[in-house]
Amino acid sequence: MNKRLVFNTLAKIGLIESAIMLLPALVSLYFHEFSVFKTFIFVICVTALINVVMLGLTSCKDQNMTARDGVAVAALGWIFLSTFGALPFYISGEIPKFVNALFESISGFTTTGSSILSDVEALSKGMMFWRCLTHWVGGMGVLVLFVAILPRDKKSSGLQLMRAECPGPTVEKLAPKGKSSAMILYIIYGALTALLIILLRVGGMPLYDSVCTSFGTAGTGGFNVKNAGIGFYNSAYIEGVVTVFMILFGVNFNIYYFIILRKFVGIYKNTELKVYLGIIGAAISVIIINTMQYGVFNSFGKAFRYASFQVGAIMTSTGFATADFDTWPALSKTILICLMFIGACAGSTGGGFKVSRAIILAKTAKRNLRKAMHPKAVNVVKSDDKAIDIETVHNVSCYLIIYISIFFVSLMIVSINNFDFATNFSSVTTCLNNIGPGISQVGPMCNFDSMSDLSKCVLSFDMLLGRLECLPMLMLFAPSMWFKKLY
Amino acid sequence: MNKRLVFNTLAKIGLIESAIMLLPALVSLYFHEFSVFKTFIFVICVTALINVVMLGLTSCKDQNMTARDGVAVAALGWIFLSTFGALPFYISGEIPKFVNALFESISGFTTTGSSILSDVEALSKGMMFWRCLTHWVGGMGVLVLFVAILPRDKKSSGLQLMRAECPGPTVEKLAPKGKSSAMILYIIYGALTALLIILLRVGGMPLYDSVCTSFGTAGTGGFNVKNAGIGFYNSAYIEGVVTVFMILFGVNFNIYYFIILRKFVGIYKNTELKVYLGIIGAAISVIIINTMQYGVFNSFGKAFRYASFQVGAIMTSTGFATADFDTWPALSKTILICLMFIGACAGSTGGGFKVSRAIILAKTAKRNLRKAMHPKAVNVVKSDDKAIDIETVHNVSCYLIIYISIFFVSLMIVSINNFDFATNFSSVTTCLNNIGPGISQVGPMCNFDSMSDLSKCVLSFDMLLGRLECLPMLMLFAPSMWFKKLY
Repeated sequence: MNKRLVFNTLAKIGLIESAIMLLPALVSLYFHEFSVFKTFIFVICVTALINVVMLGLTSCKDQNMTARDGVAVAALGWIFLSTFGALPFYISGEIPKFVNALFESISGFTTTGSSILSDVEALSKGMMFWRCLTHWVGGMGVLVLFVAILPRDKKSSGLQLMRAECPGPTVEKLAPKGKSSAMILYIIYGALTALLIILLRVGGMPLYDSVCTSFGTAGTGGFNVKNAGIGFYNSAYIEGVVTVFMILFGVNFNIYYFIILRKFVGIYKNTELKVYLGIIGAAISVIIINTMQYGVFNSFGKAFRYASFQVGAIMTSTGFATADFDTWPALSKTILICLMFIGACAGSTGGGFKVSRAIILAKTAKRNLRKAMHPKAVNVVKSDDKAIDIETVHNVSCYLIIYISIFFVSLMIVSINNFDFATNFSSVTTCLNNIGPGISQVGPMCNFDSMSDLSKCVLSFDMLLGRLECLPMLMLFAPSMWFKKLY
Repeated sequence: MNKRLVFNTLAKIGLIESAIMLLPALVSLYFHEFSVFKTFIFVICVTALINVVMLGLTSCKDQNMTARDGVAVAALGWIFLSTFGALPFYISGEIPKFVNALFESISGFTTTGSSILSDVEALSKGMMFWRCLTHWVGGMGVLVLFVAILPRDKKSSGLQLMRAECPGPTVEKLAPKGKSSAMILYIIYGALTALLIILLRVGGMPLYDSVCTSFGTAGTGGFNVKNAGIGFYNSAYIEGVVTVFMILFGVNFNIYYFIILRKFVGIYKNTELKVYLGIIGAAISVIIINTMQYGVFNSFGKAFRYASFQVGAIMTSTGFATADFDTWPALSKTILICLMFIGACAGSTGGGFKVSRAIILAKTAKRNLRKAMHPKAVNVVKSDDKAIDIETVHNVSCYLIIYISIFFVSLMIVSINNFDFATNFSSVTTCLNNIGPGISQVGPMCNFDSMSDLSKCVLSFDMLLGRLECLPMLMLFAPSMWFKKLY
């Protein structure tokens, strides 16, 4: 890879991060938290200094970025980002252990929402704001932000970066230039977030809480402002609004662009959207029946309220919880775990395996079954009436294989902790899919602090793998990434 | 499909089964169990009569079997076989519920070894013999037996049948004719079983127990003669012999054919064998360290004895247990669950996903990673120095997808039972991979009787899916399998 260019880009990303940190600094100033304010200013200076020095050392003329460079920027960028992002937690002493601070920061940026904090309300206002802001920045992607705000002359660079970071099996360009696509995405993202803040305010939520909760919802993250989560406000209206917006943020953002362009045919023909909404509907129905049957809820209204919230929160990988679903009957829990694996739509802020990948796999399997029946018939895998090329099908299959391998290796390492099977299994599931809470010891009313440092490191890495969809992170380990030239 | 030919073949398989039932009938006569003897004679007569009538009704000239007919025979054959096989249990009243009798019969033929019996020693000698014999018949495959013993003129028919039943991603012919291949397989199988019986007798095990245990070991089934399992004899020699033979029966039978032909290069070059033994070695080592660390065993010798037995039993999908591994530390349990998914070698009597499939998937993923690094390089997936064609790679990927889908659907249905997650997860794992015991409520010291009838039916179907590697069973549900002609 072109190391100069990669580290040059990383330095610029670092500078953007230090600029973003000004926001929580201002928040702490507003709330008269002067020591927290000083911490932020200190971290901003350190981050800026390091990155300015790196920028100076790596100045380069060749700004032509290859796919490989884009992948390297994505992988290293997210590690840099999370490390700098952990500094405020650590230096302020609000999370005194660095492994924990890093876990929390990675969980924030990857929009996982798993936490090592048992008492989130003990955090200062500024730190809490930073914690939630990482969700918002990570949700749409920091490289997308980078492409959106920095002036670039080569349009290929922007696309290489966005492609390396964007979730889903295929990347569709919204506009011919990467920069325009990135800006469109951020405008839609910002507008939806603003709308959510207003709607939550209308529901009587304090402004600070509304902003933080909206960050967590928009990024499909899941960090809470209150220990009791969204349930704290005990308002069906607020829960309803959050449910709807979680589901909206789990939709491919291209859909919103189609709405802006009034291309409604593109929406109607979108298989992923139909399957996504279909799965959500089916899961909610079954969980309502199952929980009412076991007497968890005594009225349909209550069951609908909690079931729809939880299905939305898990399917979109947000991970908010209004009820301790760990106490729900086994079928409901199993459905939630299955939803964790499926995840949200490609091109959304949500995590998981992605609905479109699941559709491609299902169609591939169906085609294979049909081929076994009629060996001489011609079979093509189609999506949205377009035939998917064999390379995409193959890539999705490979993604599945790599995903499963990482899952089992992580599961074995986390098992060293000697917790029960449900804890180990769901902690890996929840981190690799960027959800948040699992079941048993890492259930919605528990946290990850009891895990060993080794487990926390593995789970942190899983969160990064999940957010960047494995390949970029794994490619960092290939020696030829660092030493050999392209051949 | 050619319905006449398919049902004609099924009738012949039914007749073979009624002939096989003469063996347990004789055993019950030898042990003076006259009522059991009468049951067997009755069942034999009924089975024979039904199949003779079916044979007469479906006589057909066109003996040319297509791949689709072969698949239909395999899928329906195994269902027929298990249903007739359940009759002795049910009619004798030793398993009074038909769902349970069918579960036990399917578990036997598919060499799963999961049981609904809490007290196996309460069974009569004859019934116990039949229960273990189903393992032996199912292990190498009833269609292979059929091809081996019946005279056939068309060599294609034999191969179509063997291909539909044989485990693994690719089928290698041992001899140009299907009939010869089948005979070679059964001769090796019989010889190894005989050797095992002798070695167990030498260790002081009674003849009846040796024969039954050998059936369970050879078929990698796992039904026990004693409630305490192999641990009953409390003999390191017997456990050692069984461990070695479980591992031997988990090896691709082609290896033994190579030994007979003195083609040692073929063995040395066999990647699957090396990986299989490597995984076994690694798993044993980690479990020894893990269990000793947690004080489950106080000496290396004891840890080695129990760990190697259990790894052999799980990896080969036999499912014998000498220790309650459900009480072992989490890492050891997780390793055993991972081994359940990997399974034995292709072309062995063992179940699971198969080592060779895992190798193909791992190599495909590796190739994909390398391609992401070097888009212009030529990459081919190789196995045993031979390039694997893209169709095999594709089929293995599809198998994985179907396998995972079945897994999650089964998991959801079994969850309705409302047992804990470990029970639900491991019961599906153990049945779909034809292992035997799971963990928690279906652990090695428990049984499946507490499951609901619905769960038992789903798990029974999973056992059949696992044994026939999904496709044949699923194709039965395609309407075009029954009504349309090949196009």
